[in-house]
Amino acid sequence: MIGMAVLGCGRIGRLHARNVARHPRARLLAVFDVLSEAAQATAHELGVKSARDLDEIWSDRDIRAVLVATTTPTHVPLISAAVKAGKAVLCEKPVDLDLERARACWNEIAAARPVVMIGFNRRFDPSYRALHERLQRGEVGKLELAIITSRDPEPPPPSYIKGSGGLMRDMTIHDFDMARYLAGDIAELHAFGANLVDPQIGSLGDIDTCAISLRARAGALLQINNSRRSVFGYDQRIEVFGSGGMLQAGNRRATSVEAWSGESTGARDVLLHSFLERYAQAYAAELDAFVAALEEGQPMSPGFGDGVEALRLAVAAEESVRTGRAVSLGS
Amino acid sequence: MIGMAVLGCGRIGRLHARNVARHPRARLLAVFDVLSEAAQATAHELGVKSARDLDEIWSDRDIRAVLVATTTPTHVPLISAAVKAGKAVLCEKPVDLDLERARACWNEIAAARPVVMIGFNRRFDPSYRALHERLQRGEVGKLELAIITSRDPEPPPPSYIKGSGGLMRDMTIHDFDMARYLAGDIAELHAFGANLVDPQIGSLGDIDTCAISLRARAGALLQINNSRRSVFGYDQRIEVFGSGGMLQAGNRRATSVEAWSGESTGARDVLLHSFLERYAQAYAAELDAFVAALEEGQPMSPGFGDGVEALRLAVAAEESVRTGRAVSLGS
Amino acid sequence: MIGMAVLGCGRIGRLHARNVARHPRARLLAVFDVLSEAAQATAHELGVKSARDLDEIWSDRDIRAVLVATTTPTHVPLISAAVKAGKAVLCEKPVDLDLERARACWNEIAAARPVVMIGFNRRFDPSYRALHERLQRGEVGKLELAIITSRDPEPPPPSYIKGSGGLMRDMTIHDFDMARYLAGDIAELHAFGANLVDPQIGSLGDIDTCAISLRARAGALLQINNSRRSVFGYDQRIEVFGSGGMLQAGNRRATSVEAWSGESTGARDVLLHSFLERYAQAYAAELDAFVAALEEGQPMSPGFGDGVEALRLAVAAEESVRTGRAVSLGS
Amino acid sequence: MIGMAVLGCGRIGRLHARNVARHPRARLLAVFDVLSEAAQATAHELGVKSARDLDEIWSDRDIRAVLVATTTPTHVPLISAAVKAGKAVLCEKPVDLDLERARACWNEIAAARPVVMIGFNRRFDPSYRALHERLQRGEVGKLELAIITSRDPEPPPPSYIKGSGGLMRDMTIHDFDMARYLAGDIAELHAFGANLVDPQIGSLGDIDTCAISLRARAGALLQINNSRRSVFGYDQRIEVFGSGGMLQAGNRRATSVEAWSGESTGARDVLLHSFLERYAQAYAAELDAFVAALEEGQPMSPGFGDGVEALRLAVAAEESVRTGRAVSLGS
Repeated sequence: MIGMAVLGCGRIGRLHARNVARHPRARLLAVFDVLSEAAQATAHELGVKSARDLDEIWSDRDIRAVLVATTTPTHVPLISAAVKAGKAVLCEKPVDLDLERARACWNEIAAARPVVMIGFNRRFDPSYRALHERLQRGEVGKLELAIITSRDPEPPPPSYIKGSGGLMRDMTIHDFDMARYLAGDIAELHAFGANLVDPQIGSLGDIDTCAISLRARAGALLQINNSRRSVFGYDQRIEVFGSGGMLQAGNRRATSVEAWSGESTGARDVLLHSFLERYAQAYAAELDAFVAALEEGQPMSPGFGDGVEALRLAVAAEESVRTGRAVSLGS
Repeated sequence: MIGMAVLGCGRIGRLHARNVARHPRARLLAVFDVLSEAAQATAHELGVKSARDLDEIWSDRDIRAVLVATTTPTHVPLISAAVKAGKAVLCEKPVDLDLERARACWNEIAAARPVVMIGFNRRFDPSYRALHERLQRGEVGKLELAIITSRDPEPPPPSYIKGSGGLMRDMTIHDFDMARYLAGDIAELHAFGANLVDPQIGSLGDIDTCAISLRARAGALLQINNSRRSVFGYDQRIEVFGSGGMLQAGNRRATSVEAWSGESTGARDVLLHSFLERYAQAYAAELDAFVAALEEGQPMSPGFGDGVEALRLAVAAEESVRTGRAVSLGS
Repeated sequence: MIGMAVLGCGRIGRLHARNVARHPRARLLAVFDVLSEAAQATAHELGVKSARDLDEIWSDRDIRAVLVATTTPTHVPLISAAVKAGKAVLCEKPVDLDLERARACWNEIAAARPVVMIGFNRRFDPSYRALHERLQRGEVGKLELAIITSRDPEPPPPSYIKGSGGLMRDMTIHDFDMARYLAGDIAELHAFGANLVDPQIGSLGDIDTCAISLRARAGALLQINNSRRSVFGYDQRIEVFGSGGMLQAGNRRATSVEAWSGESTGARDVLLHSFLERYAQAYAAELDAFVAALEEGQPMSPGFGDGVEALRLAVAAEESVRTGRAVSLGS
Repeated sequence: MIGMAVLGCGRIGRLHARNVARHPRARLLAVFDVLSEAAQATAHELGVKSARDLDEIWSDRDIRAVLVATTTPTHVPLISAAVKAGKAVLCEKPVDLDLERARACWNEIAAARPVVMIGFNRRFDPSYRALHERLQRGEVGKLELAIITSRDPEPPPPSYIKGSGGLMRDMTIHDFDMARYLAGDIAELHAFGANLVDPQIGSLGDIDTCAISLRARAGALLQINNSRRSVFGYDQRIEVFGSGGMLQAGNRRATSVEAWSGESTGARDVLLHSFLERYAQAYAAELDAFVAALEEGQPMSPGFGDGVEALRLAVAAEESVRTGRAVSLGS
């Protein structure tokens, strides 16, 4: 059994805490939140203790790993502290909004042989994972084109936008990681951004729609398209195309019902609205992969470096939006 | 080139006449209809002559084959006359509404080595035909179950119902032929009928909805379901299931467009409404099969005997509706 | 919190026990199995006690309800004992293989105001449930036709067949319940059966394939088709068709991946193989409905009477297979 | 009746000639090809004359319109000559491979009030057309994103590549026109190109794979992806996404058959392989639109200017591939 603590008891933290509590080979030993009520509610629900402070976590030798689901600015200090305390870490994305700060974190902890997984949950979605494995096994031959579609059901409020780091670091970062998951390292990219959904987002200097092209070092071309609003639900699809065929992984709905009427045929449900529902299986599988890697002493994947690389692509995309030029990612 | 005449210039006759006119190895030489205006309109459209009477057809040695698309009661006398005049015949279904009359027709013409195809058009639909060929090739192993769904877009007017011979001989007869096409000869069947769509149909002693089970001599079980009304269009599907898998052949729509909105996703067009559109390719392929069989001296399929067998199943189904018992088709 | 015990710790009993243990408003207090090792394994996994005997269950006042997942012949005595001990019961289907025995059970317990739900799990499948609700709301108008397809992935071993009560009471009984769920009480039915899958099943006097027609008292016609073997997985579909349109509820797959190759396009995964996976959500929702009805003092649905009615349809279907006649269900 | 001649009797010319011959309101009066055998074969098949030279066409006052389906370098001189002879023109795409030459052509003929339609056949595909109309009617609200997928079944031979003008002017030009059809004029674009399919194409200085982003003046972002090879057939799809939803128009197959086996479920046919089949309806509808516009004296759409604009986008895309920069299309 892997003793674990969950840091952060907001919406995503609670989901993680429940997953840890339910995992057959993990044991949830404590939760923590700077809002002690949030921590206590989660602790009570799951029958574990609510830590008074972080030191209580760091010093508890039964806690072998922490799951960091706190606000983004706290990720770097919590990763550092956890690694120094000898804990393994599963940290929600992004590592940080600032590329240099993320790199500095790594430099600071590297000597301590950090065991860190970054929570790019989509890598663990059963459909994406199956597509990835079939791609790796060569089912479509050499990868030539990939299309990544990712659209949120509705734009977040301005308050969220302000601290989000902008579309690229907050939302597209998932798709940058997916691009790397599918095609390996990226050589160059170009991004168009637009403010089409909500003028408030534009007035905050952010964009809500983008069209991005990437060239992988291995040669494949990829396209990402994002929108902050999709009236039919959380639209999440990937398509990989190669010399031998194509694989598509699509959306999920609550039921399989199709309706046939005088107006249309085969009409299905709108898509699952929330990422918590859409990726419920992914979050559970992510935790399972983390636990299994810990048990077996395997390297973590996606690791800290993957978190840094996705952030680097986000920063490059912002530059491309600004300059109109393709940006080379160097070597 | 096969010289042909088309008898009957109603809706379906005109469709056939155009197909003959367009066929690369057939030549439309004449059309005929008891309503001379109908015949003349079709003749004018296609640039052929409108025969004054049937003798003009029977005596024209360039006319090697006739396509009979007249009213049902004229099928038997026209088949007989055509065969006696040495013509090959492609006759619209059904042979007749009366089983004994159909059999008597055959007895009368059999000595003349009749060349007769019955127009069970669905056997020539590209999707049904492909399914049939894959079934014959053993793609799903031995056939165990088949589901035949056939629903008209809207009920015909009472005037049509009166002369139709009833649901089984008018509409289900296509599905009985399809059952034989898929599973071979039928050993026994059971039918439930109901009047759910239009009370006028019931008051004429007919049904508009049915659920039929059949057992093929070869062992497979089949189900047919019919309705005289489908608000989403002409619903035509078959499913064959066997020891090695399943094949389904489905409906057709005018476009491939799918709509995604706040109410539903993947909503497609309603189905093609008219059998003339739904089976446009089938009618052309049927004619082509007829021409090819004539050219090559091959037996016609479906032949006169298939027309009689389908009618026999319709009569048996009516008996089953009446008695509540399964009816054996004998040997 | 509803205190519960689970009787029977086989495959399905363990699934139920886990669902009870996980339910937010139920508490699993004990498990029991005549094989004490099975009971102890489940008890250990879920951290509850393994009852030594049934009296320990009946006398435990904290246990308000029992879930019966034992072998079929024990259902009737366990329901009786539980009701007499004042417990509510959620009993796996079927009530019994013998119609008279099931009726006698009810007569024996009726005075005790029994609170009994029968585990027709499919009523709680999210897709079937949504279809049912939309049908009830009138989305397709008046129901005219329903097609129920239910095919097991592979035939059970002869040893299972021997005690199963035969296809109708063991497997089709689910579809009979589904027919009633969709269309209400049944007026008459006809059934064809066949032994096409496994000769051993035939030599045991059973069938493995069937085609059944039913007429609901309200007028709709329904068709059920069953097979004991489907090489592409557990095939479970329903289609309801009415004056205003059609609803279909379909199969489930592990992923949404579609493959496009030189051989085919849009090829999806085979279906979930096991009923435990296919209906995992249904089992959880069934328990939730049971708990909610208990909390609110609502009548149980499907209740004991629904279990008896489904059995009555199975018995009638067997008679129809034997006699070739449609069987009236009386009033 | 609109008297017409078809210039060019290659594969696409013959298709056009047959469509003219079959059109109810057009009459095919002559065909012409520099290879007189090709012209004679088509003339014989369709029962029309084969013109000895172009003057015979230009001077025939019954010929009101010509359909130009000759090699690309002859388009400009034939358009010019036809317009000067007072003929309306339906010219296959592209106008020319050279933007300046295309513009010069227009300058030369503009005074003659030219009536010219450019054969961007996809605008007339029933599915694309229906999608376009529904988009225009506002069904998905304001357009925000569009994804255009266009992949040829297999790469053309090197001999074709040499004279093709390169991927952008030969193949992507259709997608540039589709982008304008959907989103109106384009403000800027960026293109990545790659040689992934056939090294011979690369050695000729051409690319065979591309990923292009476009920004419409009206604000929408669009993505085009192309490949010269798709093993599952001619892959042609568009997706438009807006504030109110999404519309997709997809591929076409020869049948509706789906196969379910132990390996996969719902496996459909590979796609239609040839553009002649895929867009058969589009070519017929294009001719019909041309004839109708001539009859009614309506402006041609897509017109000569649309041909020039698509070429301008192709040239800009080539520049972007070369420089790595987004290219502004100016005003």
